Amino acid sequence: MAKPPVPAKVSELLGRPNPAVIAAVRPDGQPVTVATWYLWERGRVLVNMDEGRRRLDYLRANPHVSLTVLKDDDWYSHISLQGYVVELTADQYLTDIDRISRHYTGVPYPVRERARVNAWIELLTWHAWGSAKADR
Amino acid sequence: MAKPPVPAKVSELLGRPNPAVIAAVRPDGQPVTVATWYLWERGRVLVNMDEGRRRLDYLRANPHVSLTVLKDDDWYSHISLQGYVVELTADQYLTDIDRISRHYTGVPYPVRERARVNAWIELLTWHAWGSAKADR
Repeated sequence: MAKPPVPAKVSELLGRPNPAVIAAVRPDGQPVTVATWYLWERGRVLVNMDEGRRRLDYLRANPHVSLTVLKDDDWYSHISLQGYVVELTADQYLTDIDRISRHYTGVPYPVRERARVNAWIELLTWHAWGSAKADR
Repeated sequence: MAKPPVPAKVSELLGRPNPAVIAAVRPDGQPVTVATWYLWERGRVLVNMDEGRRRLDYLRANPHVSLTVLKDDDWYSHISLQGYVVELTADQYLTDIDRISRHYTGVPYPVRERARVNAWIELLTWHAWGSAKADR
């Protein structure tokens, strides 16, 4: 595990629309993971979820998360980021989910009738494996 | 979240050599995630790690884990399994990592000089998204 900031090569990789999985921890100590879209911006991670997600309650009780980002063509090469949610805010007008959706799909987010929430994640540690390592 | 057993379609999907990410929880409450190989056998999950992994200490302190399995061709369709490690045992003669390696790569595991440990995971709950859902 290394401390941020991440090297340029890792940052460049994180900036692509990669598959990713995020973990939060339930109050009873059970981790829960889901596949997620994310944006990598200025050394922080943005994820966005439906306001009805139970994960929001988990994050309010324990803001610590871990995100594993897989390389699309070689998933065993991956980057894991550990950190904590520093900001949970309403995604008014769905501006941010549209940015994220465009990053992954090229078009705005299709579902318009559900409110969504942004979670900004500050990094504590990170680690890269395989060809995602900075020295390869 | 549903209770096991998983439906036949989900079980069939879990049986393929899919990309996957596993989460454990550190004693300080920080979740940690890594990409992992796994085997789905008789309703349980087998993962296998180098005996030097700090994750082993985390699992001894809190055996609860979450595994998210991504569909190779459509990663947003995924299956998440929550459970706990019921057995941590030495992989003598590297029999199990070889089985897992063959499942993913077709050949035995190349690294022979490091001892490895099996973790068998019993399911508590599961959930499927997108085309991984049983009803599609």
